[in-house]
Parts: sequence; structure tokens; C-alpha cells
Amino acid sequence: MAEVKLLGLWYSPYSNRVEWALKLKGVEYEFIEQDLQNKSPLLLESNPIHKKIPVLIHNGKPICESTVIVEYIDETFEGPPILPKDPYDRAIARFWAKFFAEKGPAVGRSFFLKGEAQEKAKEEVYEMLKVVDNELKDKKFFVGDKFGFADIAANAAALWLGVLEEASGVVLVTSEMLPNFCAWRDQYINCSENKKYLPLRDELLAKLKARVQPAGAPK
Amino acid sequence: MAEVKLLGLWYSPYSNRVEWALKLKGVEYEFIEQDLQNKSPLLLESNPIHKKIPVLIHNGKPICESTVIVEYIDETFEGPPILPKDPYDRAIARFWAKFFAEKGPAVGRSFFLKGEAQEKAKEEVYEMLKVVDNELKDKKFFVGDKFGFADIAANAAALWLGVLEEASGVVLVTSEMLPNFCAWRDQYINCSENKKYLPLRDELLAKLKARVQPAGAPK
Repeated sequence: MAEVKLLGLWYSPYSNRVEWALKLKGVEYEFIEQDLQNKSPLLLESNPIHKKIPVLIHNGKPICESTVIVEYIDETFEGPPILPKDPYDRAIARFWAKFFAEKGPAVGRSFFLKGEAQEKAKEEVYEMLKVVDNELKDKKFFVGDKFGFADIAANAAALWLGVLEEASGVVLVTSEMLPNFCAWRDQYINCSENKKYLPLRDELLAKLKARVQPAGAPK
Repeated sequence: MAEVKLLGLWYSPYSNRVEWALKLKGVEYEFIEQDLQNKSPLLLESNPIHKKIPVLIHNGKPICESTVIVEYIDETFEGPPILPKDPYDRAIARFWAKFFAEKGPAVGRSFFLKGEAQEKAKEEVYEMLKVVDNELKDKKFFVGDKFGFADIAANAAALWLGVLEEASGVVLVTSEMLPNFCAWRDQYINCSENKKYLPLRDELLAKLKARVQPAGAPK
């Protein structure tokens, strides 16, 4: 029987992408929560180059980088497809996954940094979401009429951003500013199918509250 | 008949990846050289999000991001495969392509920036190449025993870095520091098969010399 282990953090959007793909395919796996303050020998030897989560270990062989892992899962296991079948649609899905890989980390920086670096990150998030808002003007999903790879790669914009806003009291996004993005986000996080794959909002909120300094708190 | 256009710059490693894939597959294409100081309406409408080269336009439909385009070409056209067949090997190839996408731009910054930003970029290039040197200790190619996707994605480290060193007179790499990387690079740029796909060294050198301020020149 295939042995699948996932080294991750339950509250990380990068880990969540991989869990999403595994659950969608119905793959049984062992989730091994990591401590990034004290990295495990298994993590260090499985991802010696980046020393980051997530790492999927399949039959003893490690695979790193969340979107690379999701493509691997899609190509390796039976079950509903994650990437579209058509090569052009696949390219568009990969384009958006790359977009979120490059632009997405500004979301975390907007809440966890301070001062000038934080303001710069907020501006980057707003620029990213303006692009997304424009893209989703007449579309329900990033590619075709089906939820898939690009949407999974957009998980931090869909759930984490709003939870971090609530946890910190800092509002970055309003539906007046970004109506199409907000409509997409509402649908994304309230869809009963997606709820099976996303972490519970309340648990994520409690975890992120503890990590984000509330607005107005003494510095 | 399929109509394939490539918006690019002949001396850009990003364009070169796409040209490499098209030539490998034997696809006829029209190369439309771009002027980045005065971006064409076709470039702006084909890549409205990043406004960057390369863009492949296939039957009127644009595809952006060099590695996304190379995967599209591999999935769309007949001819020798670019990515490996095995899903694990494909994941490793994508891991390295992502590594060079993230770390590679420091090569350009090492020569085109000045002062502190330049020194930081040089340090980043050295860190990147130490990883590559270690990886290539007992290997001829990044994945298995075959030149492919990851090696094409490493084209700037293989050819452009050395040409920029010669153009600027600034030496970043020696075979004492990085013996495995240098052995891989020598083999890469001197392989007669690869020469069919890379720009001519002398022409690239002349172009880059004109763009890089020589070391020791008055500032």
C-alpha cells in the first residue's frame, strides 16, 4: 500500500493546498505537524534546499513546493482531476498558480510585519487583488466553469486574508473597493464542498489571533 | 495550419527557453522582437497583467510566463518530450524550474544594479550556485540522465552569467569555488546539440557589453 506522509502546519495555506488535493483524491495520509522554531530532522533531510513546509513523502520519496506537490498528486492518484484537461486551460491555471505563488506572500507580510515594510506589503496586496478583481469580472472561477488548480492556489486570498483582517482588526478589503473579488471570496468560503477542505474558520481565527498583534494594542 | 507567434527579445534567457522548446518540437513560428522601452499594443493586450515577454500566441490565444509556455508546448506539439514521463521525475523537474524562476533574477541584478543592491544580488547568486553545485555533485543533469525542462530553465546560469562576467569584467564564479557547477556549465554550453538552441555567444556578448558598464569605467 502506498505510504503518504505530509509534513506541514495545519494553519498554513501552503499545507492546505496539499491537504485539499489529497482529500479530493481520497488518498489516506499521515499528517505530521511541524515546529518551524525547531525544525525536525525529517523536514531538514526531506527539503534540504528550502527547509520549508509542506513536504509530501510518497513511498519514502520527498516532494517539495505546494503547487508542485498538487500537480504530482493530480498525476499520481486516481480521482477527480485538479488541473483541466485542455493544454490551454492548463496553461492558464498554471499562470494563476504562479501569480499567487509570487504575489500571495504579501498577505502574510501585511499582518506580521510592522512599519514601512507592512505598508509596502499592504500596497502589494491591494495591487494583487485589483488584478484578481478585474479578472473575475465576468467569471465564477479562474479557468472555465470549474473550480480547480488556480482556485486552490488562491486559498490564502479566499480565506486567510479575511481571517487575518478579523484577527488583527485591520481591514484591507471592502466590497466597495473590490466587488468581484469579494463576491468570489464569499462564494468560495461558503461553498459546502470547499468547507470540507478548508480549516475551520473559528479554529484558524483563534490560531491567527494569537499570532497577530491586535490593532491598537501597545507596541 | 497552426499559427504560432512569439513576442520576445532574442537576448533574453526567458525568451530563449520558449524558442528552445519550439525548435526542439520542430514548430514553425514567427518571432516578433519587442522594444521594452516602448511596449507594443500586441504585448500589452496579450499580457495585460505582467506586460512582460515572452508571450506565445497560438491560434490567437496568448500564453504568458516562460516555464508555463514550455509546459504548454510540451503538451501541445508532437516531438521529443521536454518534461520527463514519470510523475516523480516531473515533480523534481518542476521543483528546479521553480528554483531558477525564484533565484535566477539575481543574476541580472548582479550586473545591472549598483552599490548595495548589487552586492546583495551577488551574494544571492553565490548562495543559489552553492545549492546547484551541491546538487550536481554526482549528476550530469538535474533530473535522471537526460537533459530536459529543469536544464532549459537553468539556461541563464549556464550561458548568460558567464557572458555577463566577460561583458562586465566582474568575476562571480570560479571552478575552485564551484567545481560541479562549472563542469556542468562547460558541458552545457559546449554541447553541440545545445548550441542549436542557444544564442551565439559572440552576438550575446556584444549585446550585453553594450548594456553593462565595464568594471573600472568612469561612473
